Amino acid sequence: MDLKKIGNVKFVYGGVCAARGFKANGIQCGLTHVGASVTQKKNDLAMIAADTECTAAAVYTTNKVKGAPILVTKEHLADGKARAVIVNSVNANTCNPDGYEKATKMAQLAAEALGISENDVIVASTGVIGQVLPIEPIANGMKPLVEGLNYGGNKTALEAIMTTDTQPKEVAVEFEMGGKTCVMGAMLKGSGMIHPNMATTLTFITTDACISAEMLQRALSDNVKVTLNRASVDGDTSTNDMVCIMASGTAGNSEVVTEDEDFGAFSNALYNIMLNLARMMAKDGEGATKLIECAVTGASDEKTAETVAKSVICSSLLKSMIFGEDANAGRIYCAVGYADADFDISKVDIDMSSKSGSITLGHQGCVVKFDEEEAKKVLSEDEIQIIVSLGEGSGTAVCWGCDLTYDYVKINGDYRS
Amino acid sequence: MDLKKIGNVKFVYGGVCAARGFKANGIQCGLTHVGASVTQKKNDLAMIAADTECTAAAVYTTNKVKGAPILVTKEHLADGKARAVIVNSVNANTCNPDGYEKATKMAQLAAEALGISENDVIVASTGVIGQVLPIEPIANGMKPLVEGLNYGGNKTALEAIMTTDTQPKEVAVEFEMGGKTCVMGAMLKGSGMIHPNMATTLTFITTDACISAEMLQRALSDNVKVTLNRASVDGDTSTNDMVCIMASGTAGNSEVVTEDEDFGAFSNALYNIMLNLARMMAKDGEGATKLIECAVTGASDEKTAETVAKSVICSSLLKSMIFGEDANAGRIYCAVGYADADFDISKVDIDMSSKSGSITLGHQGCVVKFDEEEAKKVLSEDEIQIIVSLGEGSGTAVCWGCDLTYDYVKINGDYRS
Repeated sequence: MDLKKIGNVKFVYGGVCAARGFKANGIQCGLTHVGASVTQKKNDLAMIAADTECTAAAVYTTNKVKGAPILVTKEHLADGKARAVIVNSVNANTCNPDGYEKATKMAQLAAEALGISENDVIVASTGVIGQVLPIEPIANGMKPLVEGLNYGGNKTALEAIMTTDTQPKEVAVEFEMGGKTCVMGAMLKGSGMIHPNMATTLTFITTDACISAEMLQRALSDNVKVTLNRASVDGDTSTNDMVCIMASGTAGNSEVVTEDEDFGAFSNALYNIMLNLARMMAKDGEGATKLIECAVTGASDEKTAETVAKSVICSSLLKSMIFGEDANAGRIYCAVGYADADFDISKVDIDMSSKSGSITLGHQGCVVKFDEEEAKKVLSEDEIQIIVSLGEGSGTAVCWGCDLTYDYVKINGDYRS
Repeated sequence: MDLKKIGNVKFVYGGVCAARGFKANGIQCGLTHVGASVTQKKNDLAMIAADTECTAAAVYTTNKVKGAPILVTKEHLADGKARAVIVNSVNANTCNPDGYEKATKMAQLAAEALGISENDVIVASTGVIGQVLPIEPIANGMKPLVEGLNYGGNKTALEAIMTTDTQPKEVAVEFEMGGKTCVMGAMLKGSGMIHPNMATTLTFITTDACISAEMLQRALSDNVKVTLNRASVDGDTSTNDMVCIMASGTAGNSEVVTEDEDFGAFSNALYNIMLNLARMMAKDGEGATKLIECAVTGASDEKTAETVAKSVICSSLLKSMIFGEDANAGRIYCAVGYADADFDISKVDIDMSSKSGSITLGHQGCVVKFDEEEAKKVLSEDEIQIIVSLGEGSGTAVCWGCDLTYDYVKINGDYRS
């Protein structure tokens, strides 16, 4: 998909290894789970390791059921420092009586193999909930995993964190800050069990910029709100979601310690990373064939705009209709109308656009007559934009979702994913 | 499906015509809509008419987009009286510039044909949103519709309000009140665009009991909360939902005017009607193959129990897994965990049951080992119960949903329904 560029950044290759001083690797250590129809033939254990200690920050799921790795990572990041990430797929290590112990063990194994403090290790798991995590494959895999770490290992690492993802999702940007060229890169896994108002999915971000842990946390928290938290695939908020960022400071800029111009440049780079990851994630939602982008304008405030946009992208009826390429405009009004926000429905206009053109579907609360063939053409593309104008103020928000397809049901009905 | 019986009532035949003095009829007047793949060959216009004036009450959708018929019906019921219902399917008469005018016209036509006051007519429409309602077929159909009214017309009327429903949904009960035998009956349409916290769907209830409009409203509002508002098919709150009830008083009991014992008997009869309609509706959800009933117990209060139960029945991942008959217990914990309510997840137990047995899936926040074959057997039935025990208090609630299937996507992607 086309990357969206906001402000002064340049897209570069390399994902989590794009920034100087970050190695990565992924291997198949042999994790399996009960109910799998086939043994997974892909990497299942990944590591990201920085050459030097980094400041670090994270945002976590709001689900009351929290994966054991989340609890361990929270403790390890309490001092705002980290140096490596250890992460497995296949098994979420969640709802298990020995989950905490196993997550701690993963960190210990990684720390020993790297010769760093256990407290500097971020631990993450993704996969099936409620099955005991076998630690042996991870213990046995640690040596080859660490030995294979390299400055171009982003792809093998990324493969190891994917579950039902059909596309690898990574992005990196170069940006200027305090007269220095900095680099920031990231990888993300996430396809199902994705819903706004959480950290959303597993995302690992690395940068060589120099920034305090406090400002790093602020930039991350701010940007999560307007990117990953505005993407939804199926309304299910996962138990293991985590977005974390490590900043090594090797780019040589003066440390960002306040909300100055440099912080602005840093935050904008992060926005570019997270915006594009959010769009990639929604587009690769389980079973999805189309990205749905809903832009709400003219709201009395941003919160109202966001609430309405989320209501639209979360509607099962709308998602099915986009899959079927049917311009059933009344369903869009219906989803706008049940959004839990204050506005006057009789002022609402609705338009739809894609690469193939744009069309007006509704005006002042009523569906207008439109050319069905023209609408079909707009809907034939794989990225559809729905524009809802509330006509009340200047608040805007964009949210991302995907269509609901036979394959979503197949993926989630046919085997334990 | 088996009817659930609570307290002292007897199920009887006849739907909205079960109570004495209520006629009904349904005809095909010939409404069509743009985008329909085939011309509908079924009834599309229905009437229910009482021999005498009734007290009446209603509950309406909470969607900001309200069908024009809702606005007209609200005005007509302001005096707590009604004598007839006119309702069409195919076209929702919503999001149309001339919607109010057309809904008023429908009431006028019905009133003239029946020789009653326009103000005594309840108007409802269901079908596609945002297409102008052609009034001619309705005007032309009014004479045969009224001429065909009869005391056994419940089935033809019911057929006329169905859209994507695959099963007719009606129920009637006999109950004792103040020494008299009273009868109450109802019909419901609803299959998609159904979500808690609204009046939910089109439901028409008739009774020969004598009760004031005020007490009728109270009984209806109370019971909607614990029945129809606890059923969800797809999370989409419709624009045209309405539940209305007419009470003719011909059973001869002393008028119910306060919350006395008679009110209790009346309300229990209504609960039996609405509980069974809610279950029928969920089970016949668009594309559904299974009813999912989630019972939450041990909550600190009823609201908490309801929030958790709704979270479970609304989870797309859980709905897909029930369709696939896969006992992925972690997904149930996940849906419980993101419910917006206060409780301690480490106290939560999860069980599952059906006609084929019952099985424990989780204990104190952790998935337990269970027999996969046994779980498959439980899941093979068409009514599945999930029991979530929060272990904190005595609050309970039951909510109803259905599985998410290929056919849901087909119905909502393939044609304009």
